[in-house]
Amino acid sequence: MRFDIISAVPNLLHSPFEHSIIKRAQERELIEIQIIDLREFGIGKHKQIDDYQFGGGAGMVMMPEPLDNAISFLKNQRAYDEVIYMTPDGLTFDQAMANRLSLKGNIMIICGHYKGIDERIRLEHVTLEISIGDFVLSGGELAAALVVDAISRIIPGVLNNESSALLDSFQDNLLAPPVYTRPADYKGMLVPDVLLSGHEAKIDDWRYEMSIKRTQERRPDLLDK
Amino acid sequence: MRFDIISAVPNLLHSPFEHSIIKRAQERELIEIQIIDLREFGIGKHKQIDDYQFGGGAGMVMMPEPLDNAISFLKNQRAYDEVIYMTPDGLTFDQAMANRLSLKGNIMIICGHYKGIDERIRLEHVTLEISIGDFVLSGGELAAALVVDAISRIIPGVLNNESSALLDSFQDNLLAPPVYTRPADYKGMLVPDVLLSGHEAKIDDWRYEMSIKRTQERRPDLLDK
Repeated sequence: MRFDIISAVPNLLHSPFEHSIIKRAQERELIEIQIIDLREFGIGKHKQIDDYQFGGGAGMVMMPEPLDNAISFLKNQRAYDEVIYMTPDGLTFDQAMANRLSLKGNIMIICGHYKGIDERIRLEHVTLEISIGDFVLSGGELAAALVVDAISRIIPGVLNNESSALLDSFQDNLLAPPVYTRPADYKGMLVPDVLLSGHEAKIDDWRYEMSIKRTQERRPDLLDK
Repeated sequence: MRFDIISAVPNLLHSPFEHSIIKRAQERELIEIQIIDLREFGIGKHKQIDDYQFGGGAGMVMMPEPLDNAISFLKNQRAYDEVIYMTPDGLTFDQAMANRLSLKGNIMIICGHYKGIDERIRLEHVTLEISIGDFVLSGGELAAALVVDAISRIIPGVLNNESSALLDSFQDNLLAPPVYTRPADYKGMLVPDVLLSGHEAKIDDWRYEMSIKRTQERRPDLLDK
């Protein structure tokens, strides 16, 4: 699976993709990530990529031409299953969307910055608008990194043990149960007896009960899905 | 405002905090960010920080002792308004939470990794559990970076023009209207006439109407809030 990410701040994205699971997934050639510097497609001597918004008001808008050129440059190299724009007014990202996108081949992601991108680029090129949540960020880069991370980790072979991802929160609309590790007694705080019992069926039952209980307490809305 | 972030993968967080608005906010001494390497508090020769989970199953759990020691090390230096744990079963982060947290002084953020942290640390130290959305990531680092970004950009003085943040999506439970910049005619795609009219009141009306329309179409749930 391939991610091409267009950004006005490409350096911001370096370290998130050079560590941990995303790094390993690239080394195993399960995913490929290319970061495209929008400024290389900027206009004129100063490689301009943004300008004041029509109608006035604070905040710059990313110009249509550099984006159009960057997107077309990529589209001339390969076909894309989705051209995604990260924006607070997009569809809210969730595990179901991550699962669905993990089955795609080539994905392009456009990161907004400042006030966002010119509306005409959205109408012309974008096939899917994604919001990470109901809050505003200084740019789409971190949101794009999150999306790449959430998708990549469920691609078969990326995690060392596939069952690990399938038992996470949200895969079954339940929150995960609490987890414990050594020591069994930490400063007088004890691990629940059942987890030390070695009785597999009882442990499964306990975990399922705790998942239900935690979901009822914290996210009853998930149980109605 | 100060953020102390405890992470098992501290290098992952470098570039997100060294660019753009977050960089500027630090240079202006409006925010301070310290990343604490959990492994420095690891146990034994190998600086162990994780272990198998009690009760069996895939995925490692972050051990209580290194976390307890890292958290206590920080608490001995200063008082914290919140000790936050990034976890999919936490309270869903939104703009209202960002606004509220932007008024705090010192915030500690614990990033989970693998299957998460030992439950006893949550009970003992954590004052606020935050989820970035209904999906699972390979670690809490990117989620923590998002939270720092969303909070920092609304601290007065961080953005060059404060009105810029107040007109963003979600500050009034409305999505932002579409934005346009030069050229007015891009490959035959035109900017709406009203934005070129110079008539301020009409432009304001149009933007408000478009905000309402976009919110009704995409996020009618926000209008009931």
